[in-house]
Amino acid sequence: MKKLAVVALGGNALLRGDQQGTAEEQIANITATLENVVYLVKEGYNLIISHGNGPQVGNLLMQYDAGEAKYDVPQFPLDVAVAMTQGSIGYMIERSVRNILRKYNMKKDVITLVTQVVVDKDDPAFQNPTKRVGKIYDKEQADKLTKDNGWVFKEEVKAHGGWRRVVPSPQPKDIMNTKAVEEMAREGKIIITVGGGGVPVYIDDKGDIQPTEAVIDKDLASAVLGKKVNADEFYILTDVPYVYINYKQANEQKLEFINHADTMKHIENGMFAEGSMGPKINACLRFIEGGGGKSVITEATKLEDKSFGTKITMEYED
Amino acid sequence: MKKLAVVALGGNALLRGDQQGTAEEQIANITATLENVVYLVKEGYNLIISHGNGPQVGNLLMQYDAGEAKYDVPQFPLDVAVAMTQGSIGYMIERSVRNILRKYNMKKDVITLVTQVVVDKDDPAFQNPTKRVGKIYDKEQADKLTKDNGWVFKEEVKAHGGWRRVVPSPQPKDIMNTKAVEEMAREGKIIITVGGGGVPVYIDDKGDIQPTEAVIDKDLASAVLGKKVNADEFYILTDVPYVYINYKQANEQKLEFINHADTMKHIENGMFAEGSMGPKINACLRFIEGGGGKSVITEATKLEDKSFGTKITMEYED
Repeated sequence: MKKLAVVALGGNALLRGDQQGTAEEQIANITATLENVVYLVKEGYNLIISHGNGPQVGNLLMQYDAGEAKYDVPQFPLDVAVAMTQGSIGYMIERSVRNILRKYNMKKDVITLVTQVVVDKDDPAFQNPTKRVGKIYDKEQADKLTKDNGWVFKEEVKAHGGWRRVVPSPQPKDIMNTKAVEEMAREGKIIITVGGGGVPVYIDDKGDIQPTEAVIDKDLASAVLGKKVNADEFYILTDVPYVYINYKQANEQKLEFINHADTMKHIENGMFAEGSMGPKINACLRFIEGGGGKSVITEATKLEDKSFGTKITMEYED
Repeated sequence: MKKLAVVALGGNALLRGDQQGTAEEQIANITATLENVVYLVKEGYNLIISHGNGPQVGNLLMQYDAGEAKYDVPQFPLDVAVAMTQGSIGYMIERSVRNILRKYNMKKDVITLVTQVVVDKDDPAFQNPTKRVGKIYDKEQADKLTKDNGWVFKEEVKAHGGWRRVVPSPQPKDIMNTKAVEEMAREGKIIITVGGGGVPVYIDDKGDIQPTEAVIDKDLASAVLGKKVNADEFYILTDVPYVYINYKQANEQKLEFINHADTMKHIENGMFAEGSMGPKINACLRFIEGGGGKSVITEATKLEDKSFGTKITMEYED
């Protein structure tokens, strides 16, 4: 049986911080990244692709804000915004994958799903929103939005200051349609799912699915997806070729192979930055703890050279 | 084998003209409509759902316009806008269908696809854009957008006048992933696809899929989908229970059963309004000409009573 890989594309693989965010920029970035991802297909893997949406959903929230002010078009809540970015980014990825496959004379179905991810309504994250989203407001605007919409703000520490909305980032508990996704992927279809960490929903006391104003970490949701579809390998593509300890210090050391126990020690020693490499490492551990064979963190361009990247496994191989 | 039905939901079944367009309004409308659509599932049909996006994509284009003016967030082209509405509306439909199924103790997978629809790049529609989209501009703004973006405008005849962008509405030639959609639907999964008529793309001379600034008629795309998945029945849900001839005249007559030949005669006699019932009738004919058994035009609330609705077949049944 072919190996099944879940590959999570970082939001920055799709839209860099120095770019405006036009469709042309995004499709160019996506195509460059996917040229490398398709290498896994050439190698004989079955493939599921997930993706971030940080810069894109930020832009969309600004468009909502401006549209309300200028044309009285009502703003949408975060669940709908995430669903919109699953549509737009998923479409661009699917189109790009299809064109790359054609170039290499590979015939495969490519299917993009709009995907809901279930969180626990009692997740403590709802009491402690931490994830910054959308535009920077001044104090007066932020106070008004807190009063009108119940939004929570935190002060920006960087650059020009100001106030930014923070939303909860609860744990992904369940991902919809994973059985169908696994079946299709094992038939050789390339599946794009869990974009932006998934549309956040919870199950109410009656059993109904309800929307929630939150964002789910896309690496963590992708790791849970990987477990649920029984994937063999889990890749997080980011902007560095390796994970490092003592990062940017004189004794910096790149990690090529690392087992579960040593990874835990490095976490205890504070080696991985919160809000940056920390969550990626946690997602990698979640995947291998669930029975996955190997998690890999690397740059997209390094996929073709298997010696690259940080490989995380339960035990070191002999 | 169970019968397979394709049901196309009108944009107005999701968002009425007198509503602002909030997520709450849309989910309430969607749920009311789908309560009726799920009746087909209770009756033993396999089901594919498509939907319009007219009011939604119009609101999104206004949000793009305002976002550029206020925050310099670049506007997205129409293909991306349609993909966004497939994400948002598809998610709301899927969530609603899941909740309704649960209420009736029916267990079924519900899967929403982001769907590209291929048009011919030489379609004459590209020389004659007719479909009005987005906000109403004044003459000066319209002239500037023509100069800057190459947009085409037509003057509004109704109410307050002004100028509105018109875009091509080419014929749907091919719909992506119909084989997988048919397989899944025949396994009993409810599939949501071809939202807003599909993300409009064309195949360039090299064979690459390229985006195009157009909108595809959702009823026509749904009819083509129905043919390609070998559906037995095709439903267009709109805001009238029947199709009429001599509509709103003294000799108005509702049509209950109508065959292909008589439908053609009514078209020749100008009985169906362009831009309103005309395209729906054309889509119904397209479906039965392709081998589909029956096309039906009616209101969602009438699905439960099979005597309602205008049924269009190749020949009258005995």
